[in-house]
Amino acid sequence: MFEEGAELKEKHGAGNVADLSLGNPVTEPPAEFHRELKRLVENPPAGMHRYMANAGYAETRAAVAAQLSREAGISFTQDEVVMTCGAAGALNVVLKTVLDPGDEVIIFAPYFPEYLSYIENHGGVARVLAAGERFIPSLDTIAGALGEKTRAVVINSPNNPTGVVYREDFICELGRLLHDGSARLGRQIFLISDEAYRRIIYDGLKYPYIWPHYEQSVVVTSHSKDLALAGERIGYIAVHPDCCQREELVAGLIHCNRVLGYVNAPALMQHLVRQLQAVTVDIADYQKKRDFMYQNLAGMGYSLVKPGGAFYLFPRSPLEDDVAFVRGLQQHLVLTVPGRGFGTPGYFRIAYCVDDKTLECSLDGFRRAAREFKLS
Amino acid sequence: MFEEGAELKEKHGAGNVADLSLGNPVTEPPAEFHRELKRLVENPPAGMHRYMANAGYAETRAAVAAQLSREAGISFTQDEVVMTCGAAGALNVVLKTVLDPGDEVIIFAPYFPEYLSYIENHGGVARVLAAGERFIPSLDTIAGALGEKTRAVVINSPNNPTGVVYREDFICELGRLLHDGSARLGRQIFLISDEAYRRIIYDGLKYPYIWPHYEQSVVVTSHSKDLALAGERIGYIAVHPDCCQREELVAGLIHCNRVLGYVNAPALMQHLVRQLQAVTVDIADYQKKRDFMYQNLAGMGYSLVKPGGAFYLFPRSPLEDDVAFVRGLQQHLVLTVPGRGFGTPGYFRIAYCVDDKTLECSLDGFRRAAREFKLS
Repeated sequence: MFEEGAELKEKHGAGNVADLSLGNPVTEPPAEFHRELKRLVENPPAGMHRYMANAGYAETRAAVAAQLSREAGISFTQDEVVMTCGAAGALNVVLKTVLDPGDEVIIFAPYFPEYLSYIENHGGVARVLAAGERFIPSLDTIAGALGEKTRAVVINSPNNPTGVVYREDFICELGRLLHDGSARLGRQIFLISDEAYRRIIYDGLKYPYIWPHYEQSVVVTSHSKDLALAGERIGYIAVHPDCCQREELVAGLIHCNRVLGYVNAPALMQHLVRQLQAVTVDIADYQKKRDFMYQNLAGMGYSLVKPGGAFYLFPRSPLEDDVAFVRGLQQHLVLTVPGRGFGTPGYFRIAYCVDDKTLECSLDGFRRAAREFKLS
Repeated sequence: MFEEGAELKEKHGAGNVADLSLGNPVTEPPAEFHRELKRLVENPPAGMHRYMANAGYAETRAAVAAQLSREAGISFTQDEVVMTCGAAGALNVVLKTVLDPGDEVIIFAPYFPEYLSYIENHGGVARVLAAGERFIPSLDTIAGALGEKTRAVVINSPNNPTGVVYREDFICELGRLLHDGSARLGRQIFLISDEAYRRIIYDGLKYPYIWPHYEQSVVVTSHSKDLALAGERIGYIAVHPDCCQREELVAGLIHCNRVLGYVNAPALMQHLVRQLQAVTVDIADYQKKRDFMYQNLAGMGYSLVKPGGAFYLFPRSPLEDDVAFVRGLQQHLVLTVPGRGFGTPGYFRIAYCVDDKTLECSLDGFRRAAREFKLS
């Protein structure tokens, strides 16, 4: 489908095709990033590009820990932080560390499709549960799925592809459920929270952290979205300070960061993000884009949940066959991704992390498709 | 042992302990790197930090291909190059791509110890062969080890930990052997050449490339050593243009780069190394260090091969028990690594990629140990 999109761009000119298929923000990193980069380049500390400990620079880990402590209300030290090659690297390191062959990892559809590969990479088995109402996982379904093979549950909020942000009461109940399940099954079940979009959150919402609600928890995240550094592969793992066997777990994470061939998170980016833990791209701009797209699409008759974060919309496909609809929309020069790519047929994903002109240009195509498929 | 080293430094002062245990060069990147970094930071191209195609920037891949074509005498295009997170990332991506579960990968002791993990990561089985005379693998031994499970042979020249550079006639015969073996066994056996130290080569030697000698070959390398960027995780995979099913292989490499969670090689470093393919750190300086250490140690009675490249020496341990000797040497405030860490007991590794003062400071310890263990 990507190739078909490329052909369309060739035929009609890239400027006439609204490509909303990729989660690759056009946003530039914030001014503070450029300032800090200039400062480092003009006064480079000796050895700035050398290997460091596999966990990352102590100063960077300490800066991450300090910011987490400020935000999450519990106290972290650098010993609970491992710097990684992005959130993708982080998640692979965590899974390699905690999984035994055949262990199950619960994920929720719609899911970020790479989860399936990451789990398989390390001998795990993905147990996919359909999310319920408004794309929130059902606690009953989770309770029914926990078993002797369950090693971890992965959540992703704000969510790719739905943009949905889980509420604190949901996380609280999930924590209780996993606590009881671990006790009943006699094995520690990890809650792995993929927070790649944590800072991209709207309407003045305060991010509901998992930390107060479950101790056997690990966060994976990156600065790909909050600092617009997706190509630089810089992220981290944070482990709950009161996690069982925390020291062994962190030693395992550091070991796996090494033996998986990541070795360490890129050095220069570690120097940079140390100073930028409290900095974020312009969220108001993303919120404006969300509002613009949500209002217009809802007005055309598309059925969709208004998301609280990330930069995706996940409307119901006007055709039962989401691939056929996405193909139809392509003919109107708008590129999106079918929901079945995220384990949820009957929907499609819009990535609105593009410039306003592209969003405006997409409306005509969405309108024609709405008419063609009789939405209004 | 690293902890014991850290304790020694604490006790005696870091300046009084000669740490020759790590392959983490103190060399700074060459002036051209700093110039190019400044240029990029002052005039950043739009989107410099965004995702790009998982294979890397077309311009960077083309620059790598052009340099390889100039050096190796056969013609590469960007379609044979995939940018990676260092050579470690590159090797993991290659192994994930070519291995079926249970496939054997032949490596030679002494070996870079991470090879064992990398092979295991992807369901392979390491078949370790002892290198022969002067640390060169024996062709007869290789011939005897090829079998129905063999999928790949990994070579590493200049070698970590021995510093030995394989001669062209050896590579030529190895190529013939693998060609015949593949034909006999009815399966393509890959030659994977880890060339992390390719540019760190002495005495005016011309690097003997594998390319003219075997078509089913893949090179993994990085700019960690030649540009002194070890912490930045920037490297690449190059595939022989006439490799069987080359397009499928490269598509597999790109896919595995993504699903292993590397996603892409760090963006800014890709921009930088594009302009630096012909640039290398000061090799004469490394050669001076090699000569200094080799002459002094040989003069004290240590038995060692004079290496043609990399920045390691791998002398015979004066005690049969290399761990006991390394411990003894520690007491004289010199840190090295026992040979058994590289699969070859009875030797020890010296990394001389440190400043001259540290090397000078180490001589006294080596001399005392030589006396203590009756070398002369």
